[in-house]
Amino acid sequence: MASWVETSEQPEFSLTNLPFGVFSTKSDSIPRIGVAIGSYVLDLKLLAQRRVFAGLDFNTDTLQATTLNTYAALGRHIHRRVRAYLQKVLAHDASVRHVLRDNVELREASLIDMRIVQMHLPMDIGDYTDFFTSPYHAQNVCINIVRPGTQLPSNFWDFPLGYHGRASSIVVSGTQIRRPRGHRVVNGAMTFGPCRKLDFEVELAAFIGEGNALGKSIGVDEAEKHIFGFVLLNDWSARDIQRAEAGLMGPLNGKNFATTISPWVVSPDALENYRAEPLDNHPPQPHLQSGQKNSVFDINIDHLIAQCNTKNVLFSFPQMIAHHTASGCPMRTGDLIATGTVSGPENTQLGCLLELTRDGTVPFQKPSGIDNTATIHREWLKDGDRIIFRVSKDNQGKAADVGFGSCEGTIAI
Amino acid sequence: MASWVETSEQPEFSLTNLPFGVFSTKSDSIPRIGVAIGSYVLDLKLLAQRRVFAGLDFNTDTLQATTLNTYAALGRHIHRRVRAYLQKVLAHDASVRHVLRDNVELREASLIDMRIVQMHLPMDIGDYTDFFTSPYHAQNVCINIVRPGTQLPSNFWDFPLGYHGRASSIVVSGTQIRRPRGHRVVNGAMTFGPCRKLDFEVELAAFIGEGNALGKSIGVDEAEKHIFGFVLLNDWSARDIQRAEAGLMGPLNGKNFATTISPWVVSPDALENYRAEPLDNHPPQPHLQSGQKNSVFDINIDHLIAQCNTKNVLFSFPQMIAHHTASGCPMRTGDLIATGTVSGPENTQLGCLLELTRDGTVPFQKPSGIDNTATIHREWLKDGDRIIFRVSKDNQGKAADVGFGSCEGTIAI
Repeated sequence: MASWVETSEQPEFSLTNLPFGVFSTKSDSIPRIGVAIGSYVLDLKLLAQRRVFAGLDFNTDTLQATTLNTYAALGRHIHRRVRAYLQKVLAHDASVRHVLRDNVELREASLIDMRIVQMHLPMDIGDYTDFFTSPYHAQNVCINIVRPGTQLPSNFWDFPLGYHGRASSIVVSGTQIRRPRGHRVVNGAMTFGPCRKLDFEVELAAFIGEGNALGKSIGVDEAEKHIFGFVLLNDWSARDIQRAEAGLMGPLNGKNFATTISPWVVSPDALENYRAEPLDNHPPQPHLQSGQKNSVFDINIDHLIAQCNTKNVLFSFPQMIAHHTASGCPMRTGDLIATGTVSGPENTQLGCLLELTRDGTVPFQKPSGIDNTATIHREWLKDGDRIIFRVSKDNQGKAADVGFGSCEGTIAI
Repeated sequence: MASWVETSEQPEFSLTNLPFGVFSTKSDSIPRIGVAIGSYVLDLKLLAQRRVFAGLDFNTDTLQATTLNTYAALGRHIHRRVRAYLQKVLAHDASVRHVLRDNVELREASLIDMRIVQMHLPMDIGDYTDFFTSPYHAQNVCINIVRPGTQLPSNFWDFPLGYHGRASSIVVSGTQIRRPRGHRVVNGAMTFGPCRKLDFEVELAAFIGEGNALGKSIGVDEAEKHIFGFVLLNDWSARDIQRAEAGLMGPLNGKNFATTISPWVVSPDALENYRAEPLDNHPPQPHLQSGQKNSVFDINIDHLIAQCNTKNVLFSFPQMIAHHTASGCPMRTGDLIATGTVSGPENTQLGCLLELTRDGTVPFQKPSGIDNTATIHREWLKDGDRIIFRVSKDNQGKAADVGFGSCEGTIAI
């Protein structure tokens, strides 16, 4: 399926994808909702104002908001209807080419060159939870590095472990990252100062669409309907601060200074060709057992010096949602849940410097097979470093037809 | 200082207090802002509409909102101005008695019998962080019960430990609490089902007024200005679920099913007569050292079978805020931070059943000195139990002239 819209060299914003985001331009600084197509952002606010969606029987005011929350709350059946219609309008479909392709004025007004837009946080995020679902990451961190000689606790295999994260410091790709200050142990003594072990973590995250009421759980086989879409996520981590506060509680200041997400939210429907099975595990408790096949995604995320794959997890997003709400905890539209670092079994598939450098004891180098011109020898992030996560190739080695844009941040100098 | 408004037997809503809340009535179901005075709620929306605050030079639209967020964001200098004016209007002050006391129509319309109002969550809560600042609680839980024979980690004394909590399940006093389901270990095996060790935790919490930007810390001596006010908080806890998920991350499903707060938000200015020193500790790192004297509060909180005091903490709210933002983490208006369980050194001062029953091994009984007619012999909360936190007496043993209303919840049957 091809679009008449001019495409970039990267096909990540294909007709298959049509991810949603929130953007503004110099000429109109009010954030508004758009869809990425080729090298353009399609202004859905303008299309809604021009009644392009009038036949689709939903509240089109939701597309004229400054975040995606009210649209996401409409539910997946509406999102599918809008997606199908946009695919038709943007494809070579004669029956609707008057809507946009042959409507020169609207076409030129609504298709905006992606290079001139400013992206914003796509949703107003209520709560953010970060899980810990890759056993490769967990084993590397806990057994090989942090607690040598120990075993992962057995609950790691029983259900998705996670912690409540900080919503207020989630930022959109491109936001500068300030090196946090905090307590850290130097030469055996607790001191306070700038982080010396600044790290990134490669993750996939899901935005909640329709929520659930307090006290009502979401069943595992109902859970995917509650997902509005996915973003790439960088869970920036201050390893020394994290270590100094560890012991009784989960991460607080070691994580809460910043979390970056990609600007484009990719719907579950766009990822149908990227589905995969999660890793082998013993059967979970009945409420986490799903009839759904291929409940996770085979997405390659390139980063600084390696490539992660989001299928390297024990639990799917539906299982994370079912677990999280089993207590009766309400999920609200715009809540975000993330996989945790999706490291794989190979050294070229590790998702953070803690693993790649064995806690800073081995300088990282360009792993073989990763094309990166600079040879790099060091342990942790330095001021001025720019970290970019991006999807470039699919599981066949071809240019991926679904991407999230860039999830990037530069450490402030 | 006395008010002309009829008072209840309990003086907790005195002229000294004037706490803010959000309420509705049967005749007007839209939540609106009020102040508690005696046995009444004073409708500030109506007063603002009638231009009662016109001379005070602030945006009075903030008092016509459905939450306290925009008003709280105005900053403490405005809150003090409004508080002083309300004290004058509600006291026997001849110069302003035409405003309300002698304005029969407005007086009768704006003073609403507290027994007929429905209270709502006072603020839209972005992020919630729960700290762990009472060493009595920490020692009881960690050393005596959960990890016998160990010591508290030294970081407990260095800075306020805490974890990110769940904002979506914070409810106002009176909301029914559903017993959570979750993973818990029964006879050595991981199983899933209803919580068998349901508990409460007695805490004091602070709402943030003015926030800080990402990357900018709040200094410890500036931090109190960022507090809008305080509420009582019940951090309901599922001890078996909490135990089953512990080890690598902080509390998730063991805590995220519900947190109850009192309906009335008490300003720092109302608590001037309740100030006290925190517990002795070694000097913290310089950024947590404050010139402020009496940075914590001597408030007695009665609960089921004992009485806690909020001065039994190592760190003050300004220290919690300075620590939390030292990383650059932004606090937003409406964010909530809590002390953790404020247990004291005596058995009559313990703030949760985990401590009172030594993890369910000793049935709790009415401690001597606590007036409670029912003799109770059991370990954990049962369906139908109603837990009420309330301030009744001050540190002199007299009826307290500042209270938060009741922080209560009943376990659903």
